[in-house]
Amino acid sequence: MKIFSEELVGSVAREKHIANIEQATIGEVLLIAQTLEDRTGIPFIRMDQGSPGLPANMIGRQAEKDAIDRGVGQHYPAAAGVPELKTATEKFIKAFLNLDIPAECCLPTTGGVAASFGSLTIATQLDPGKNKVLFIDPGFPIQKSQLRVIGAEWESFDIHDFRGAALRDRLEQVLSKGDIAAIIYSNPNNPAWICLEEDELQIIGELASRYGVIVIEDLAYFCMDYRRALGHPWQPPYPPTVARYTDNYIIMLSASKIFSYAGQRVAMACVSPALFNRTYPTLAARYHDAGHFGTTFIASIMYMITSGVTHSTQFGLAAMYEASVEGKIDFVEDTREYQIRAQKMLDIFKRAGFTMPYDKDPVQGDIEGGFFFTLGYPGMSGGTLMKELLYYGVSAINLATTGSEQEGIRACTSRMRDELYPVLEERMMTFKADHPVC
Amino acid sequence: MKIFSEELVGSVAREKHIANIEQATIGEVLLIAQTLEDRTGIPFIRMDQGSPGLPANMIGRQAEKDAIDRGVGQHYPAAAGVPELKTATEKFIKAFLNLDIPAECCLPTTGGVAASFGSLTIATQLDPGKNKVLFIDPGFPIQKSQLRVIGAEWESFDIHDFRGAALRDRLEQVLSKGDIAAIIYSNPNNPAWICLEEDELQIIGELASRYGVIVIEDLAYFCMDYRRALGHPWQPPYPPTVARYTDNYIIMLSASKIFSYAGQRVAMACVSPALFNRTYPTLAARYHDAGHFGTTFIASIMYMITSGVTHSTQFGLAAMYEASVEGKIDFVEDTREYQIRAQKMLDIFKRAGFTMPYDKDPVQGDIEGGFFFTLGYPGMSGGTLMKELLYYGVSAINLATTGSEQEGIRACTSRMRDELYPVLEERMMTFKADHPVC
Repeated sequence: MKIFSEELVGSVAREKHIANIEQATIGEVLLIAQTLEDRTGIPFIRMDQGSPGLPANMIGRQAEKDAIDRGVGQHYPAAAGVPELKTATEKFIKAFLNLDIPAECCLPTTGGVAASFGSLTIATQLDPGKNKVLFIDPGFPIQKSQLRVIGAEWESFDIHDFRGAALRDRLEQVLSKGDIAAIIYSNPNNPAWICLEEDELQIIGELASRYGVIVIEDLAYFCMDYRRALGHPWQPPYPPTVARYTDNYIIMLSASKIFSYAGQRVAMACVSPALFNRTYPTLAARYHDAGHFGTTFIASIMYMITSGVTHSTQFGLAAMYEASVEGKIDFVEDTREYQIRAQKMLDIFKRAGFTMPYDKDPVQGDIEGGFFFTLGYPGMSGGTLMKELLYYGVSAINLATTGSEQEGIRACTSRMRDELYPVLEERMMTFKADHPVC
Repeated sequence: MKIFSEELVGSVAREKHIANIEQATIGEVLLIAQTLEDRTGIPFIRMDQGSPGLPANMIGRQAEKDAIDRGVGQHYPAAAGVPELKTATEKFIKAFLNLDIPAECCLPTTGGVAASFGSLTIATQLDPGKNKVLFIDPGFPIQKSQLRVIGAEWESFDIHDFRGAALRDRLEQVLSKGDIAAIIYSNPNNPAWICLEEDELQIIGELASRYGVIVIEDLAYFCMDYRRALGHPWQPPYPPTVARYTDNYIIMLSASKIFSYAGQRVAMACVSPALFNRTYPTLAARYHDAGHFGTTFIASIMYMITSGVTHSTQFGLAAMYEASVEGKIDFVEDTREYQIRAQKMLDIFKRAGFTMPYDKDPVQGDIEGGFFFTLGYPGMSGGTLMKELLYYGVSAINLATTGSEQEGIRACTSRMRDELYPVLEERMMTFKADHPVC
């Protein structure tokens, strides 16, 4: 039996001006779930929004408070970022990615969202003939919304059927038209938690170089592929990155998930040194500067958007990077709780007859889930599944809203709590009984 | 005699790739001054950059640290801002401006620069026929640079010869062409420290309403017209604002100068409630939303740029607003030091034969200076004056770089120190002797 009636859910949706529940955005889904919780007192299993479910890192918090005490609040932060953070980022990247990106190429931004906004802005201004962005979907809907603000176009395809060597032809098909300025994806992937592998990144990198395309690689869930022993400083294995295969990249490293630091809004945009030092006449003409990519990105674009990043927070992130490099923070172990939750939740869902639309990487094999995983149910569209689950007190988002062509939902583990597993179990067994698979 | 030779200054400029000293930006001037200081050990009188010269407000700092201790760093800040800050802003605006702007219309932004970037973005997207911004200059060069990022055009005129009733015809001349989306200015003015008065703001407001133009009013130096007894909560006089004369406004209230909080990057964009609740089909079409100005501004534009503002900093600003409203912070007295410095510095410069290009407001009379004031020297262009002063160990910026048509420089008082007055006195008396006025 349903916990929340169709009538009740429908009336809350109407009240909140949500026209189509099946296509609801994250914000709309959480509004429905919160309202139902408030109105009935019955708790939801909240798998909708990806807000960290762990305390913000203590070393970062202490460093921020120390910086405030030292009086950094008075002074504008340097446009290029505080030197302590820039050098710590260089070290962090060397220790955990085995890449050489000099400090000057590493720019703090007001969260990964600002890194992405600035990267998409500059990438679509380099060549008047190239104003489109290619999304290797499924992806983060906000990045498409950013292009609406900027006024640029996009194309996308679902990676699901183009893993491994099949990626080359699919990419070539889009890039050969010559109007793509940038390729963007996240790895591990939000929402599907698949991980692009070395040979796939090699294809992306090679084609990016050939077609003069900037790759914007979102490493928001850095080293959170828990299947591998990542995240040990100075020791392989290192996570895969397109940076090994092209000079045309910007890597985005957010502090939100790996240090549970989403509230303070800080990330790093790390530009390939070759790209950083390239000169573009189009930039020079637009910004009346020398057209040097790195300088324009920092001084003529990012500085004009926020004039730097909260001063104390930069020292917080610097301290967390330093501590990670020294082995005093193990950010992979610190977030492994998400993997544990994913395994327990997947176990319940699978026993209730659910499937995983994104279930395999070509080499690494089975997807085990982490911060996210995907779910499908036989014979049900993603929209129907999302709506049906609301009746059983489980909120998630429809994969269709992430550019996926698979029928299913994204489940986020961040808000799961120990006492909710039996509740989820009971609700999903009822769901199974109510929705027999023929 | 000059302290730094023409050869030395010229070689530093060449070394730093500064092609034209006379037209140097703020960043370039401070680079020259810093390099000369480092190289010679001789201190400069640094009147170039406007970074607060007073400690960041202690109540804000404490509230930030408390928020960090409470664990706000973990959670994404609400897209619309934390409720405590929104309601504190509503109270602050009522107490110090006697305006009714509901909390829901007050949005935190990552500094005044982000408020301006977002406001210019939405204002130039409302009507396809209106894509230009009118600057009532002199003004803040960054706001023109923001339009280069956005890809919009601008016009400007120098207010100097159009004070009082003369403003109407000058404005009408521009607005009647019908392509202006927004008018932007700061009050008190950066760089000239003039203050637009009630009748001038009435003209701006009336014409903005008639021509459907958004007024972006930058109150970065809020209540810092020290000639009047502003800044007493719930008591007149209140500072002049265009909000009394039109519904088409966005007021920007930065914490950087009034609370010396520039490092933490926080400001409020306060939208007229009538504008906030207006619906624009152009916005609906572009953002696939309902086209509601306020919701689009918050959820479809600002959220896509930074996804909110540093969580702890929002609580810091909320505490400072609350304490100001309760009379526990007197932010006008706290910054009156700038007025004292301006008076002492102006006294020295005037005795050395300097003039003030912007010296009067129509009703309030003589400009006394505060965070900024302007200086000219008989028979010298602004560029020459700026360059000549460098030889005497004084750095400032050429007014021409701010859209001014007057010959002179902007002087900033923020970095002045007690021990430097005799140094300034001696250097300027030498300057006077070396540059006799015929």
